[in-house]
Amino acid sequence: MKVIIYLYQGVTMLDAVGPYEVLRNMSDTKVYFVAEKKGEIKADSGFIDMNVKYSIDEIKSADILVIPGSTIGFMKEMKNVRVLNWIKEIDKTTRWTTSVCTGSMLLASAGLLTGLKATSHWKPINLLSNFGAIPVRERIVEQEKYITAAGVSAGIDMALYLSDKIVGEDETKAIQLAIEYDPQPIFDTGNYLNAEEKIKKIAGAKLTKDAKKGIGLLGVIKHSKSILKMMK
Amino acid sequence: MKVIIYLYQGVTMLDAVGPYEVLRNMSDTKVYFVAEKKGEIKADSGFIDMNVKYSIDEIKSADILVIPGSTIGFMKEMKNVRVLNWIKEIDKTTRWTTSVCTGSMLLASAGLLTGLKATSHWKPINLLSNFGAIPVRERIVEQEKYITAAGVSAGIDMALYLSDKIVGEDETKAIQLAIEYDPQPIFDTGNYLNAEEKIKKIAGAKLTKDAKKGIGLLGVIKHSKSILKMMK
Repeated sequence: MKVIIYLYQGVTMLDAVGPYEVLRNMSDTKVYFVAEKKGEIKADSGFIDMNVKYSIDEIKSADILVIPGSTIGFMKEMKNVRVLNWIKEIDKTTRWTTSVCTGSMLLASAGLLTGLKATSHWKPINLLSNFGAIPVRERIVEQEKYITAAGVSAGIDMALYLSDKIVGEDETKAIQLAIEYDPQPIFDTGNYLNAEEKIKKIAGAKLTKDAKKGIGLLGVIKHSKSILKMMK
Repeated sequence: MKVIIYLYQGVTMLDAVGPYEVLRNMSDTKVYFVAEKKGEIKADSGFIDMNVKYSIDEIKSADILVIPGSTIGFMKEMKNVRVLNWIKEIDKTTRWTTSVCTGSMLLASAGLLTGLKATSHWKPINLLSNFGAIPVRERIVEQEKYITAAGVSAGIDMALYLSDKIVGEDETKAIQLAIEYDPQPIFDTGNYLNAEEKIKKIAGAKLTKDAKKGIGLLGVIKHSKSILKMMK
């Protein structure tokens, strides 16, 4: 399988690395990290960079496309016609087109989720409806060949779900064991629907802080004002 | 908090990125990725590289030290006296010294886990006893200021556990919500103690294949022959 993971400035690193660590363990699979231009891609935190070796001009097809999310970087990408056109072209060749977190906003902006159910990070999820998709608060949403995952860590669950479809149960179980994915979270607060109001507020403030840093870092404010307005 | 994550050739990317994504969300925290030399650090898969901006010469202290694991790269690091000395020096300054997966082998090699219980990835865990530690098959093992986590994805649970100690329950719950960590793994096979024999075999073969690739990629065979022998 040829797995393409699209990276862009301000990406949330775990959104990309979670699915990568699962999918790269499938038999006969190669993973390519791809960006609009080769070179350094900064995470939303500013603490970490990836070296991306492939530009979108070099990648014409994929078996699996993964679009990770970001705190705010996605807003610029939603208006990046060159990238959206590339996503549409790659999508024509895929068996599965997937997203993690706000990555679904890119798929929706590219017109790929029109009339379909989709999920995203709990905070901006309702924005999906402005781009033709039907927001659903579930961890993994499968519609035709489109699989969208909820925020950040949901990409690991999504990738295992997808691996099961591709390489089957035994191999997927082995991948889960190889990465020792036997989650034991300290609290039971990872789900928006169960979370207390005060915890939602603290989490929201953390995300807003990140987004503000992202605006400074990436200079995306002029691209995203209208979208921020829609999110209010 | 000053969080130092040590990277090295052949690192397993999720081991590093899981804790990073949690810890970087703690208030007033900066995360520094550090390597023996600045520049490109390749993951075990060969599919992804990080740009590391700090060398160990530049980092003299940490509040939290995180040593991620690797499929085979750790074996070279276990014999890298310069790195082990740096780990010992940093450890003198930390509030918490932690590891994910085979990262505990580096802590043990540095003599920091002598007489202490520790965990690691399920496959090489028994190797810990050759370096003075007491291997324990648990997801998170806390001993004094040393917290070791089991394989790969266990780093996320470890980091939330640590966050709770540092910034408390409300903020940690909010971090868990921010990264939407409400795990729903497709199978219940992430734990070595429950896994079927045939699944262990497939997983073991995957890890061995990765390790072989690592030996080619990193030229670590001369460093690791004796350690591989001990693992048999």
